[in-house]
Amino acid sequence: MARPLIQLALDSLDKEQTLKLAKLAAPYVDIIELGTPCIKYNGLDIVKAVRVQHRDKLIFADLKTMDAGYYEAEPFFKAGADITTVLGTADFGTIKGVIDVANKYGKQAQVDLINVEDKAHVAKEAARLGAHIIGIHTGIDQQLAGKTPFADLQALLSLGLKVKVSVAGGINQSTVEQVAATKPSIIVIGGAITGAKSPAEAARQISVLVEAVAIRAGA
Amino acid sequence: MARPLIQLALDSLDKEQTLKLAKLAAPYVDIIELGTPCIKYNGLDIVKAVRVQHRDKLIFADLKTMDAGYYEAEPFFKAGADITTVLGTADFGTIKGVIDVANKYGKQAQVDLINVEDKAHVAKEAARLGAHIIGIHTGIDQQLAGKTPFADLQALLSLGLKVKVSVAGGINQSTVEQVAATKPSIIVIGGAITGAKSPAEAARQISVLVEAVAIRAGA
Repeated sequence: MARPLIQLALDSLDKEQTLKLAKLAAPYVDIIELGTPCIKYNGLDIVKAVRVQHRDKLIFADLKTMDAGYYEAEPFFKAGADITTVLGTADFGTIKGVIDVANKYGKQAQVDLINVEDKAHVAKEAARLGAHIIGIHTGIDQQLAGKTPFADLQALLSLGLKVKVSVAGGINQSTVEQVAATKPSIIVIGGAITGAKSPAEAARQISVLVEAVAIRAGA
Repeated sequence: MARPLIQLALDSLDKEQTLKLAKLAAPYVDIIELGTPCIKYNGLDIVKAVRVQHRDKLIFADLKTMDAGYYEAEPFFKAGADITTVLGTADFGTIKGVIDVANKYGKQAQVDLINVEDKAHVAKEAARLGAHIIGIHTGIDQQLAGKTPFADLQALLSLGLKVKVSVAGGINQSTVEQVAATKPSIIVIGGAITGAKSPAEAARQISVLVEAVAIRAGA
């Protein structure tokens, strides 16, 4: 079995800190995510800066677009982002706009199910519209209230949609194997790497744990 | 009767164009809004630039925050924004975070009801949490599908909540008097000014029409 891709979520506002963490963790991750607060704070420049330093990684711009889908996402794809996000709580016209502009540039649109009430309905409709990735996402404010993404992930995977599934929300070394065993396409790790004493070592541990699950499943 | 405030929504991505339009329309508007795509494209700098040029206007940063409310909004209030927005489809913990940080800086949080299904429920809860402004908002992608904000505005105003009400969504010279007559606190005008041959003249016309309604109501 192909192992899930590992996505590093960068939520610092500081540009230099963001670039430093990306560099430290890069050998062990597949996708570098620029978080929503980081993009709003730094603008398009942060995407360009990461693109220059990491030609071999996928770049994920977490725009969380809610309106004007095509218009808002286009400059980010042009600047080198490989994936941008649109909110599952947005109008389907907005979701369609982000999918359309992703296809125009041969890139990918991710529909983020954060705080979506009827996740199955939105996931099915997003898949029908051609979304490339659907993201199960327990937000930071929801994590603070004790929530986790695990049950939602199982429910989404059980729909068997022909679309990649990404999962995010406080995943760390003690939970990543359980998550990897459910075979999502992408596992997002934020604080467990960026908040670690050694981000590089934390990223390495995560990558080993994810690969261990894949080896076990293939055995 | 106090007339509604007029808010100019700036949705260009280009910094110079944004500053130029703000300057042209400024004499006739009360609030200068930096649109979501403009902020994601330019970052915090665009707020600082408008703050420097318009000390006497309210600055509205349309963050459309969906997660990490306090964290995402704080730098914008510090940089001079007077109002930031949080999505009504966000977790109430996120909405509370933006309200808290707005209060910390003596500023205002607006809850944007764009694409919220049960608008009355979210509006009541947002008011209870202390939201300063609630925004009725027909998005650009929804406008393209023929929708308008007028019925939603009436429904929200009829709740009689102790909170300011803002309305946005394709309002122009032919509809602004009808909107002003319902007595919202804030009327948002975008394309009718920014897309006009003379943005200054369009803004002047809007301001005259809004004042005319107030004079008629007071007579």
